[in-house]
Amino acid sequence: MPNIKFYFSPGSCALAPHILLREIGVDFEAIIFSDLRLGPLPEEFRVVNPKMRVPVISVDDEIITELPAIVTMIASLAPEMKLLGKTQLETVWVYEWMNWLNGTVHGLAFKHVRRPMHFTTDPAGCEGITAKARELLVESLDMIESKLEGEHPVGDAYTAVDPYLFVFYRWGNELGYNMKKYPKFTALVARVVERPAVKSALEVEGIKSTL
Amino acid sequence: MPNIKFYFSPGSCALAPHILLREIGVDFEAIIFSDLRLGPLPEEFRVVNPKMRVPVISVDDEIITELPAIVTMIASLAPEMKLLGKTQLETVWVYEWMNWLNGTVHGLAFKHVRRPMHFTTDPAGCEGITAKARELLVESLDMIESKLEGEHPVGDAYTAVDPYLFVFYRWGNELGYNMKKYPKFTALVARVVERPAVKSALEVEGIKSTL
Repeated sequence: MPNIKFYFSPGSCALAPHILLREIGVDFEAIIFSDLRLGPLPEEFRVVNPKMRVPVISVDDEIITELPAIVTMIASLAPEMKLLGKTQLETVWVYEWMNWLNGTVHGLAFKHVRRPMHFTTDPAGCEGITAKARELLVESLDMIESKLEGEHPVGDAYTAVDPYLFVFYRWGNELGYNMKKYPKFTALVARVVERPAVKSALEVEGIKSTL
Repeated sequence: MPNIKFYFSPGSCALAPHILLREIGVDFEAIIFSDLRLGPLPEEFRVVNPKMRVPVISVDDEIITELPAIVTMIASLAPEMKLLGKTQLETVWVYEWMNWLNGTVHGLAFKHVRRPMHFTTDPAGCEGITAKARELLVESLDMIESKLEGEHPVGDAYTAVDPYLFVFYRWGNELGYNMKKYPKFTALVARVVERPAVKSALEVEGIKSTL
């Protein structure tokens, strides 16, 4: 069995790989290095990840950053669960979702709404950044709803995309959006939160589903 | 043989999958839908990709967006070339590189430097956005240099990461950075541009290596 450490901040995007670690039932050490809701990562974290970001997973001596890469590693520990999809084409869709959710929906929409000061040297510029990012955020939520068909975002089974979408549903609620106006997205999340792995991840992180 | 169409803009990040399509030697139709250096994508493109972004690849009836997903598809057409790495762990590193290059280096650094108006509703806020993004851009170039060891960014062979890094080397030069100050990055690009697939992609796109 590999020696796995998982570094995260409660309620962050790390919730998705955290859930997946519990889905595959592997032993791991969950390390809350700091709570990003309370302040930035401490400087000591730089030895773990020079990018100063969570989540990070270490598997034996390998330190892996970037959510889709962490998910790739977790999926490889339980290939029978097909967390990256059952076919080659489904795997393409899983990476398409993950990259868009990570780069656009998280990086350009949510992060700019919540932390505009990270994206300008001019404090007076924050308001315009947040306003623009809120436009992208609503476009993104609309696009998620329009892309959902059936019980799962990819194929007919649970993949890494299901819990990753749950992260953005929670964040939408946290930012005061009426997420119930997205019926397919809401139904997906209602299925996700019934899973034992999701319940235990929420409990360990000390957070609510917000459903 | 699948029917492949590849939509791109010359000199954009699409250069990386464009090179990979030529590496695997598959027949494809190269479609320059518009030149992003001259203006935005035309509204007709929305039927191809509602996200209004290039690159896009269509394989038979499937339309695939997001660079790492496009690369996943291209790699699956020539599994013997191991464009996603030779081992499971190398594949994790390939996705780690691709996600960071796509989300942070492209999305948060280069795109904010070149198109700050996409990230604020306030034209007066553009200068602060560009200034902040230039800090991240230099940090990113420094990090690329520090991560490179050996002849290739992942393992001991050519993967999708090699041509993707070349894209950012070109862009660094275009933005006036002295890329020669990064000796390992420069040596990597010097090897990349010797490849016949790279030469033909540059020729078709009508662009220079900038090396």
